[in-house]
Amino acid sequence: MDGRKRVVIERVSPEIDCGRFPIKRVVGETVTVRADVFGDGHDAISARLLYRKEGEDSWSEILMAPLGNDRWEAGFIVTELGSWHYTVRGGIDHFATWRGDLEKKFKAGTKLAVDRQIGAELIDKAAQRAGGEEQERLLEMARRIRDAGADADALPLAQSSELAQLMAEHAGSDLTTTYEKELEVVVERREALFSAWYELFPRSCCTGSGSHGTFRDCERFLPLIAEAGFDVVYFPPIHPIGRTNRKGKNNAPIAEEEDPGSPWAIGSAEGGHKAIHPALGTLEDFDRFIAKAGEYELQVAIDIAFQCSPDHPYVREHPEWFRWRPDGTVQYAENPPKKYEDIIPFDFESAEWHSLREELRSVFLFWIERGVSIFRVDNPHTKPFPFWEWVIREVKREHPDVIFLSEAFTRPKVMYRLAKLGFSQSYTYFSWRNTRWELEQYMRELTGSEVREFFRPNFWPNTPDILPEILQYGGRPAFAVRFLLAATLSASYGIYGPPFELMVADPLPGREEYLNSEKYEVRCWDWDDPRSMRELISSVNRIRRENPALQTTWNVRFCETDNDNIICYLKMSEDRSNCLLIAVNLDPFNSQEGNVRLPLEELGTSAGHPFLVHDLLSDERQIWHGELNRVALDVRAVPGRIWQLRPRLRRENDFDYYM
Amino acid sequence: MDGRKRVVIERVSPEIDCGRFPIKRVVGETVTVRADVFGDGHDAISARLLYRKEGEDSWSEILMAPLGNDRWEAGFIVTELGSWHYTVRGGIDHFATWRGDLEKKFKAGTKLAVDRQIGAELIDKAAQRAGGEEQERLLEMARRIRDAGADADALPLAQSSELAQLMAEHAGSDLTTTYEKELEVVVERREALFSAWYELFPRSCCTGSGSHGTFRDCERFLPLIAEAGFDVVYFPPIHPIGRTNRKGKNNAPIAEEEDPGSPWAIGSAEGGHKAIHPALGTLEDFDRFIAKAGEYELQVAIDIAFQCSPDHPYVREHPEWFRWRPDGTVQYAENPPKKYEDIIPFDFESAEWHSLREELRSVFLFWIERGVSIFRVDNPHTKPFPFWEWVIREVKREHPDVIFLSEAFTRPKVMYRLAKLGFSQSYTYFSWRNTRWELEQYMRELTGSEVREFFRPNFWPNTPDILPEILQYGGRPAFAVRFLLAATLSASYGIYGPPFELMVADPLPGREEYLNSEKYEVRCWDWDDPRSMRELISSVNRIRRENPALQTTWNVRFCETDNDNIICYLKMSEDRSNCLLIAVNLDPFNSQEGNVRLPLEELGTSAGHPFLVHDLLSDERQIWHGELNRVALDVRAVPGRIWQLRPRLRRENDFDYYM
Repeated sequence: MDGRKRVVIERVSPEIDCGRFPIKRVVGETVTVRADVFGDGHDAISARLLYRKEGEDSWSEILMAPLGNDRWEAGFIVTELGSWHYTVRGGIDHFATWRGDLEKKFKAGTKLAVDRQIGAELIDKAAQRAGGEEQERLLEMARRIRDAGADADALPLAQSSELAQLMAEHAGSDLTTTYEKELEVVVERREALFSAWYELFPRSCCTGSGSHGTFRDCERFLPLIAEAGFDVVYFPPIHPIGRTNRKGKNNAPIAEEEDPGSPWAIGSAEGGHKAIHPALGTLEDFDRFIAKAGEYELQVAIDIAFQCSPDHPYVREHPEWFRWRPDGTVQYAENPPKKYEDIIPFDFESAEWHSLREELRSVFLFWIERGVSIFRVDNPHTKPFPFWEWVIREVKREHPDVIFLSEAFTRPKVMYRLAKLGFSQSYTYFSWRNTRWELEQYMRELTGSEVREFFRPNFWPNTPDILPEILQYGGRPAFAVRFLLAATLSASYGIYGPPFELMVADPLPGREEYLNSEKYEVRCWDWDDPRSMRELISSVNRIRRENPALQTTWNVRFCETDNDNIICYLKMSEDRSNCLLIAVNLDPFNSQEGNVRLPLEELGTSAGHPFLVHDLLSDERQIWHGELNRVALDVRAVPGRIWQLRPRLRRENDFDYYM
Repeated sequence: MDGRKRVVIERVSPEIDCGRFPIKRVVGETVTVRADVFGDGHDAISARLLYRKEGEDSWSEILMAPLGNDRWEAGFIVTELGSWHYTVRGGIDHFATWRGDLEKKFKAGTKLAVDRQIGAELIDKAAQRAGGEEQERLLEMARRIRDAGADADALPLAQSSELAQLMAEHAGSDLTTTYEKELEVVVERREALFSAWYELFPRSCCTGSGSHGTFRDCERFLPLIAEAGFDVVYFPPIHPIGRTNRKGKNNAPIAEEEDPGSPWAIGSAEGGHKAIHPALGTLEDFDRFIAKAGEYELQVAIDIAFQCSPDHPYVREHPEWFRWRPDGTVQYAENPPKKYEDIIPFDFESAEWHSLREELRSVFLFWIERGVSIFRVDNPHTKPFPFWEWVIREVKREHPDVIFLSEAFTRPKVMYRLAKLGFSQSYTYFSWRNTRWELEQYMRELTGSEVREFFRPNFWPNTPDILPEILQYGGRPAFAVRFLLAATLSASYGIYGPPFELMVADPLPGREEYLNSEKYEVRCWDWDDPRSMRELISSVNRIRRENPALQTTWNVRFCETDNDNIICYLKMSEDRSNCLLIAVNLDPFNSQEGNVRLPLEELGTSAGHPFLVHDLLSDERQIWHGELNRVALDVRAVPGRIWQLRPRLRRENDFDYYM
């Protein structure tokens, strides 16, 4: 290394695990880069952020701004899908050093003839690198600085922004330091950050008689789901279901003849991961469903569960992909003492792991061919990390628009590792975070730490596997509270649709699981039940679409309240033009009220300046004017508020706000 | 990469800047390594710490212990000087997984014949890797587990620690993951962490008449310095001093004929960085001084200031190492508007940087040849970082015992970078940290963060450049307070000796600098002055030598007090056998008292159990027995206490403590 490279670059951020993993963004988001950049001694330095889209030959450069304490910052917006790269470059700025010293010496009354000559030489040198008019201009300025009649005459020219700009452009140096790593950003489409999911079992889209629903039947419900403002319709596995060791109702070890089995016990004589369950229809019916959904601007997500029923064709055709026991049986899934006899895991330690992973990749590609571009991946934490890193990169190389949702309900480090490896979104612990402290603390972990760079949460108040205690006992207020929180804390959220809308709350005794779960039987939901939550859900989804502040997860800012049952947070769009204040009563059993403290300074206002608050749910308006504001949340009505604030009175006519 | 490697390793600690820099230890210290180690699914894993001294062919291995939340820990002691390396390895532990599942299935009443067969196969496989008796033993245990008459008979054997041990040793796997980096520890000698420095200007070791002192004169003071308990005698530069632009008394721009000049204006016709100032004596006198110091177990540190007077032979012989101005003059040091006309910096951006750095390395080697192995390096922050990294590595490769102290009083990130590059110790901001909050906060930064891995502080209450305000106004109590803090907060500390002992406090008006500084003139100190602080200094140095708790910097633990003028901290040796409690009155103008809260639990005792506290300074003893204890610190006496605590009553006879 050239010992004359005097500037060092440290602590570049964001940088995940020393650059081992990319950060994530969606199109249109900003990457704000910070770094410690400094040299020895007292010379001025300059720092630049370099970035480019993969495949571009040369870097774009932006000067970084000093934040103090040797830290520098600049940002760039990612405008296209795919991989981008960034790094930092820094060097001694000899021209700026000279100019600064010249000013100080002039003030101290030092004679500057020799210093002017030194500066003129720097400028002459830059002129050699410039061309045409700029060269002329630099040479002229060098001459005028060198030959000025008096020191005072040279100073304004030395300090001119024209010269500064020309020198920034042409006074390049061979002795700059470029950070040793090029860091990566994977840019995905906007839906990876902002979307509302609606999960339903297609077999339960029945025609009233309790018979097995089909894709054709499902089409009937698309207008309802679209009107309620959802973006994604997500189906549990749609493949043939095994017969051997099929589970009965409520996970009974022995199924009755008419039991349909768990959709996650994939594969039968009718086919495996690339086939459609005959009772749902044909591949053509599926294609047609996707097209119909598209007419309603709904996207279809399917479930990818890499496991087999004992009847899956793979078991016969590729015994090498499974683990066989000494008694000649194939090893089923277990987590002792729990047994999943209807499911056989792949043996990822198989000597034939190469052919296995090729086959699994082809499953994704098969469904992508048919128009699916969102995959909810079942239990990714029970398959090896290297597999996911490989398969997601492979798929996204050709299909950068594909979104992967990780259904990893497991230990935090495992969940974060899967996110680093490439999953676009992940399930979270939200389902079990109920108190104000728990929610605030969890949101701080997700949005206030490095985690935000690679882990995008998708908040689910319920799933076919999870009926949380609060929903079992909290009644309608609990469903409303959990829905409001999910839909306003996280830009991506989902509900396991019909049971949520209908507030189904019967658990397996003592468990956080559904009684008579759809996982093991066909349920026929009454989509026209007047008690449905659909109206609140539709309102909130409409508010999400109309308010950019709710279309990102990273901008949550909690406000102090004097009642722990009330959680309150601000969400502001980056340009601050859209500002929402959300307050939710976390107690589903009692009405609650309390004072909320607004950070007036951050809102660009101050005490005594009245401003309008407009509850987008109830359409009620109030005028507030101070830091502390009273909030009353009636548990019998909607137990939350989504106020739009317009606190910019100081910059405009006070009367504008009452128009 | 093999897709079957299922275990990942993350967040290895300590690891500085992604392994770019080594951590530091002294011989006998422990390196405690932590890492996140985890795999997919539910299988048991094992994690090992690997370490070796540079040059050793194979790793030593230790099993890491789980700390919970997928974090693992193990440690090793570094026993020799030089570079060591460590890394982490992890893998699925199929045997432990099998054994755990077997236990759970047994409890659930599952039939285990097939499972026993699977386990026996695992053991057979390990037997193939083992030899001799161990092979026999493994084969036998496999057979007994396979062929047991009943499941219950096999279980105790499967769970036996003998089998666990043999399997840990022989059930190796090709599918373990080794962390991608080998991290480095630079191990230095103990004095890099624990030493008391005494700085003096050899020319001021005068014989009473105010004449220029010599090394021979200095010998007279060695017994005093040794008796006071110091380890290192440190001399400012001992080289010939330039004539051109020599500074006069109090940094006057024009020197009088008799002014000796600043020792940092190095070089004259008599020689440069490898010569001795003729007025101090000869090289042989210097050799003799080092030998004499050795007789008193004192080491001699010299100052390396890489800069020249205009008269330095380098300027004539190597003009290419300096920056020349258009008027034909050489550029002197400046930090506008300040000028240092007697000093010329090297031009480290010179095209001849290679020959320059070779020469500067030879300066270190020259003095190492003469027996110097501690260097205080002047202003390292004004020379390029790559130079220091190179030169320190070069020197330490052959001389791993050499200690470098960085005199970098500059911005925090620059100071820390120099430490990372290889400096053994550094000056600090201690000189300006006076309040309890400042001191606690700074100690937390130094000892409670990653900084402790690479930055060893050396605390100086004063230096020839710094006479802090508190010493100017605080009188004897201020000197005592600052001394007690330096010598007990940091295992390495130093004083600029004679002026500190004699409490010299006259500043340049309005500055934190000495009036009539020794930097520009010979001062004759009265070493027999009865007001000297030497008695307190000697006591504290004796206590430091007798108490291992004071021989490391990393073990400080602050205690709550209800008077902000009293700072109080515990220091405990690693084995807790040596436990000191230090309380200091930070207010040099008033006596202070207050309550100190002891963390009884950490001390291994509880409220109501009396224990002896013995002030090692005053030899007073008290018996305490609760959490809150009254402390009164008289500003007219010694304004601090160093209590030895023996709070282990619960484990021994209560009366033992009063013996």
